[in-house]
This record gives sequence, structure tokens and C-alpha cells, in this order.
Amino acid sequence: MSTRTIRIGLCGLGTVGQGVWKHLTANRTALEDRLGVRIELAKAAVRDRSRARSVKVPAHCLVDDPMSIARDPSIDIVCELMGGTGIAKKVTLEALSRGKIVVSANKALLCESGAAVFAAARKGGGRFFFEASVAGGIPIIKALREGLVANRFRLIYGILNGTCNYILTRMAAEGAGYPEILADAKRLGFAEADESLDVEGWDTAHKASILAHLAHGVWLKPNQMTVEGITKITQADLRHAATLGYGIKLLAIITRDFARDELAVRVHPTLVPKDRVLANVNGVFNGIAVVGDVVGTTTYIGRGAGQDATASAVISDIADAIVLLTTGRDVTPVESAARAARTVRLAPPERLRSRYYVRTTVKDRPGVLAQIATVMARHGVSIESVIQTTSERPNAASLILTTHESDERAMGATLAALGRLRSLLESPLLLRIADFSD
Amino acid sequence: MSTRTIRIGLCGLGTVGQGVWKHLTANRTALEDRLGVRIELAKAAVRDRSRARSVKVPAHCLVDDPMSIARDPSIDIVCELMGGTGIAKKVTLEALSRGKIVVSANKALLCESGAAVFAAARKGGGRFFFEASVAGGIPIIKALREGLVANRFRLIYGILNGTCNYILTRMAAEGAGYPEILADAKRLGFAEADESLDVEGWDTAHKASILAHLAHGVWLKPNQMTVEGITKITQADLRHAATLGYGIKLLAIITRDFARDELAVRVHPTLVPKDRVLANVNGVFNGIAVVGDVVGTTTYIGRGAGQDATASAVISDIADAIVLLTTGRDVTPVESAARAARTVRLAPPERLRSRYYVRTTVKDRPGVLAQIATVMARHGVSIESVIQTTSERPNAASLILTTHESDERAMGATLAALGRLRSLLESPLLLRIADFSD
Repeated sequence: MSTRTIRIGLCGLGTVGQGVWKHLTANRTALEDRLGVRIELAKAAVRDRSRARSVKVPAHCLVDDPMSIARDPSIDIVCELMGGTGIAKKVTLEALSRGKIVVSANKALLCESGAAVFAAARKGGGRFFFEASVAGGIPIIKALREGLVANRFRLIYGILNGTCNYILTRMAAEGAGYPEILADAKRLGFAEADESLDVEGWDTAHKASILAHLAHGVWLKPNQMTVEGITKITQADLRHAATLGYGIKLLAIITRDFARDELAVRVHPTLVPKDRVLANVNGVFNGIAVVGDVVGTTTYIGRGAGQDATASAVISDIADAIVLLTTGRDVTPVESAARAARTVRLAPPERLRSRYYVRTTVKDRPGVLAQIATVMARHGVSIESVIQTTSERPNAASLILTTHESDERAMGATLAALGRLRSLLESPLLLRIADFSD
Repeated sequence: MSTRTIRIGLCGLGTVGQGVWKHLTANRTALEDRLGVRIELAKAAVRDRSRARSVKVPAHCLVDDPMSIARDPSIDIVCELMGGTGIAKKVTLEALSRGKIVVSANKALLCESGAAVFAAARKGGGRFFFEASVAGGIPIIKALREGLVANRFRLIYGILNGTCNYILTRMAAEGAGYPEILADAKRLGFAEADESLDVEGWDTAHKASILAHLAHGVWLKPNQMTVEGITKITQADLRHAATLGYGIKLLAIITRDFARDELAVRVHPTLVPKDRVLANVNGVFNGIAVVGDVVGTTTYIGRGAGQDATASAVISDIADAIVLLTTGRDVTPVESAARAARTVRLAPPERLRSRYYVRTTVKDRPGVLAQIATVMARHGVSIESVIQTTSERPNAASLILTTHESDERAMGATLAALGRLRSLLESPLLLRIADFSD
């Protein structure tokens, strides 16, 4: 009996590409044994052939043009590991239109053009695998679409960006400020030279949109979400949060109200009670809690990025792709979820409820707190606790309030009104407090 | 185009069976839509037709003999939810020999007869799915065999028994003793009337043997493992552990040394550093940490038992079974792992290294500690810390020692020698301290 050979082409041989090459080469025999095929790393498209790499790639495997891999009829599986939404999109659509399987870690492309990617796959007979696009080596995509198939998900929340979690963890542990830790993170390679995609929350938003699609069948754009980053979090916020019994984590929160058929996706720094598992997910680790209507809450933790963790996810997709190629087994389609979800609407802000943390600096004189409390009461917001400390500014006080449960609309109006008070010396920072009932 | 109907038979309609019936009925349309088939809950075998149940099962679906379901040519998928190793084994083997798919939550059967079950499946053309057998609704089986397929696993450890974790959590939180909490757990339904399978560690050992098989391809029997339960843990142990910075959890620990080709499976109460995620997995929850050579550590947490969590896992297996039936897609076979692992040996005790916690009661007189320290030194065991407190017994002291890293052989010999000292008033309790390097 002749054994089929599966030919794989890598588009991009950067950090992740080299990881895939390395581990696929190291584990090839074991994988071939399990899957009953021969696996050939046939081609790798690179921008610069002469660049030094940590893996030895035979010269005849290197090509300059990733499109040549997408078009090569002898290639079964195209791994798009270049990232971005330019050439990566062209390569992906071309390969899918030719009926190939594309394995991708590209969350930005999915968030921007997910519908187009899946449409191209449907039309061309190709398939798109994207386990590596969310939470690195944690098999969360597989868990959502297969392991938890019996469930509907009213709540999914998690830490999806290792850079932000690394920065917040070190700020909390060392009592250092955001700029110092960011600079250090860049030096150590835990943050990009241009950190904005990470620290402003956009990377988390991309991943949240993928999870929302898997769970609810719709593609939300970042402008349909609330997206706030971690750049305004100070060491004092972390200290005050700790005093109140919380850690601060940048969370993606995906809520679905099935009765009203409403969906909301939010990304923002969040106070998480210290005894919750996610409050103890530190450093570059990611963690995702999934609340299913049958299973309850299951939580998944692991390295969210990096060469090896991402390679692990890419290789598991390659293995699933090989099963599909050799047996015709299709992955559970998400299109039916999309069909079921056609009517879902964005939840209006008054339906997004939580407790809140408000930090501001005020003139240190009598009556200011009464003024603030009056404004909040006018908007139906009830204060739960107040911490007043001295400010670095002269004649000023730092004020930290927590509220009882309120909602985004009321808090938005409250913040606007507070901003008009002359006694406020800085516009207030608003953080949400996560008291999720699992 | 006519839609295929998949007929499912449930053997057993107890807690889990009723959960499967309930949730499969509630989610049937969504599942049918995703999987492109009609799903029919065709038969349910029960011991007593007249018993009151939380789900409404039409009278014509009820049968008395589970074997009639295993033999019914119109049934595609047999869910064996009776448990035990008697009739459950017969039903499983019969269905597999007829080429059916069996979905099972039966860890005891797998641990006892796993090799026979898979041999019957191979011979008869049937397939055996068992996601529900370990860690309830956490999709750990799928993660190990599919999501983490790129990895080899040098270490897997976790909390696999909700009853033990519930008891230890409440003992730690309330400062109450084992017998009181156990009695309470029984009253509340968190422990069986006969609790021994849980609290003596056997249920955890069954699940550990399944994880070890998935990761390493061999079936170990409980007598090839170290299995210790939680019955000797006192409230004082939990208090002392907390003082030292640890929680106590009943862990299954599966270690593989690939260089030496050695494997060890241990189940015992373990001191876990408080800042580790697993130390914060409380109550009836399960948690499993998997260390892969590519992905690093990923951790999975969720409800480990109960009607709904187990039903979620059974239904995900049913969905995978339907994919197999409709597309011919086989699950990743583990037999090849077994082939690769044929040479693996049990690790000898001197290779199982950790730090240790030793608690005993001694005569309160000069020289006793020196005596103990001398015995330990003679076996090469080095003391790290000592806590001496008053004992409830007159003229006695309670002694808690922690050691630097040692191994099972040295500690076994040390304990035997300590047991011969006249100054010891009770045989020492030995607990392992988990300082796993992830």
C-alpha cells in the first residue's frame, strides 16, 4: 500500500515559521506514524534568502514569492505565517480559491476580512484553520467548536494579550510605573518596537472578534466593540485595586443575551477578584474562561504567544488538515452558527452592567466629594466605597470611588457630567469590576 | 437529498443518562443543523421502568436489557452510562464487536480493561469515545490527542476528583476536620454513601491511567502506581501547609523521562505552592496542567463531575461520533502511540524526586529531634524546616519537617527507620511538595 505524501508550504519564515519548521521536523516521524501519511515540508517563502535562521532549510525549498506557494498545485497545505492584511490576504484567498487548506495565525486578517476568507473557502472548496490565531498554544478554538459543542455561551472572558499581561503583572509585583515596565518589556522582547497594537487593546479585540464569531456566528469589527487599552493604568490603580481585593487584567468580555438576542464584545482593563483563577494568570500567559449553559465554566490557561506555543497550535491544525485530506472529514462548520445568529443585535449600553472603579484628582477643599456624589446620584449611580489619598499635585487629592452595579450608559453620562466639574483636576479614569457569576 | 438519521441508545438513565437525554433533546436542532443529520434518541435501558425521572422518556423507548441496545442493528451509537465493570463491560464489548460506536464515561472499566476494549473495537470495527471519563466537562481528552498533537508530555498533573477537592477545600477554609466535612459532603450529595473509591484515591488513579494511556500509549494498573488518599490529612496539616505557603491537593502526577524511557504515575495528597493556579482550583472543580515539549504548560479547569458537565462531554463525543459516521473520519488513533511506547518501563523509586513534608508526634523530651535528624541524615535526607507544636497528647509534641529534594526510595527507607524509633508516638505521615518546573 503506497503512503500518501502531504506537501506543506510555509509563507513566512520568521519567528513562528521557524518554530513550525523546527518542531515539525523534530516530530515528523511520530506525526507520520499517527496520521498514516508522509509529511514533506516542501517550500518556504522568505523575503531574504540570505538571512540567518535558527533552522536549516535546504536552499531548493526557499522561494521569494509566497503567491507561488499558494498557486503550486503540488502543495496541499499552505501555512500563512507572514501576518498583516496585505500580501497575507492575497495569499490566503488565492490558496482557498484553489481548494487548498490554509493554516493561519493571522488574527488581524480574520478580524478584518473573516467573512471574505470563509466565503472564499466555501466557493473554492478550500478550508481555513486558525487555532494559532487566538491564545497561542491553548487549544481554545477546538474546545469551543468541538469539545463544548453541546453548549451555548452566554459569557466568554479572558486575558488574550501576553504583552499587556506581562506589563500589568510586573507593575503590580514591583510597584513600578507603566513607562518603565514598557521600556523594559521592549528591551526583553516581550513588547514590539511599536507597542500600540498590543497596549491599546487592538490585538485583544482581533482575538475577541474571532471567539465571538466561533461562539455566535457573527463578525464584529473593532468599531462595534468597546476597546480600551492599559496605557492609563498607573501603579496607584494597581495598588488601590489590591487594597480592595482585586488584580487588574486587560480582559476581552463577550456576552450574549439569548432571550433578547443581543451580543456585546468589550476589551478593557478590568478589576478581577484576587481569588479568581484569571487573577492568578500572570506574566505572558493567557487565560480564557468559557461559560457554557451545559458544562458551566471551563478555564484554559497557557502561553499566548511565542515561537513554540504558536508552532504547537499550527502543527495541531496541520494534523487536523491531514485528517481532512486523507479521510474527507470536515471540521464542524461554523456557517450554521452564522445562519442561526443572523438576527443578533449589538446590546445597547444600558444592558452592559457591572460595578465600577473611578479614579480622579480633585481640588482638596470642602464640598468636592459632595459635589461628585450629587452628580453620580443624579445619574442613578450609587457609591460603594471611597478612598481619598494625597495627590502629587499641591492642594489636590486623589479620589478612588467604587460603585454598586450600574451600566455603561449611566456611567458614560456620569463621566461626562463629572468632566464638567471645575473641582476635577483630571478627567476621571473608569475601570470595570468583574464580578461574573460563573 | 435525504438526511441520514443517527440512532442513539442510552444504557443507563441515572444522573448522567438523564443529563444526556435532557441536553441532547434541548440542543437537538442546533446539533442537527451543525452536523447535517437527524438525531434520534431511540432507546434507553433502565433497571426500573416505573422510577420517577427528571426527563420525560416515551414508554416505547424504554427497555430493560442494555444488551438489547448493544445488539440492535438500527442503533448507531451506544452510550454506556451505567458504570462499573460487570454488565457495562459486556455491553461495551458486544457493541464494539458489532462495529458500533460506544460513548462512555466509565473510567473504572477503561482502567481495568482498556486494552481489551480497544482490541474489541479494532477487531469489530467499532470505535470507543471516552471524553466524559476524565475531568467531566473539560475537553482534556481532545486537547491531549488533537489540540496538543505536536507535543510529547514529560509531565501531566492535576486534581481529578471533585469529592476530595471539595473536602480539602472546606477543611482548609473552615478549619474543620476530615470526618465532619465528609459527613457534610455526604449529606449534600458531594460524596457517595461509600466514599472509599474517591477518598482513597482510586477514582483519581483510574483517570490517571487513562491520561497516561493517551499520553504514553500504555495501560498501567493501579498496582503499578503509587496511590494514597486524603483520609489521613488533618486540619493541622492544612494549617501547617498554609503557614509554609502551600495548599494541599490530591494530585495525580504522570511523569515520563524520555531519555531513560521511564514512566511513573502517582496519586497522593500534595503540597502545592499557593500562587500556582492549581492551588486556587477549589470545591468540586478539577484542574489539569499539561507540560508539552513544544507548547509549555497549558492548564484546564472546570467541573469534574455532575449531571450537566458530564453530559456536555458525552454530547461532544456523540457529535464527533456523528462526524465519523457521516464522513468516515477516524479520530486520531492512539494505537500508534502504544506501538511507540512498547519499551517504556516503570521508573524506579529513586528517580521520583521531590521535597517532602513529614508530620509525626513524638515524646516531648530532649534529644528526640536529634535522633530523627540523625536517621534522616543517614539516608541522605536533608531537613529544610522544622515546626514543633504542642500535641493533644500529654508529654508529646507535634513535629512537622520539610526536607530538601530527596527521592521515594530514600524517604521510604527513612520512614521505615523512623517508625522503629521508640520516641515516635505515631507513624509519620509523608506528603510530597510539588515544585514543578513548568
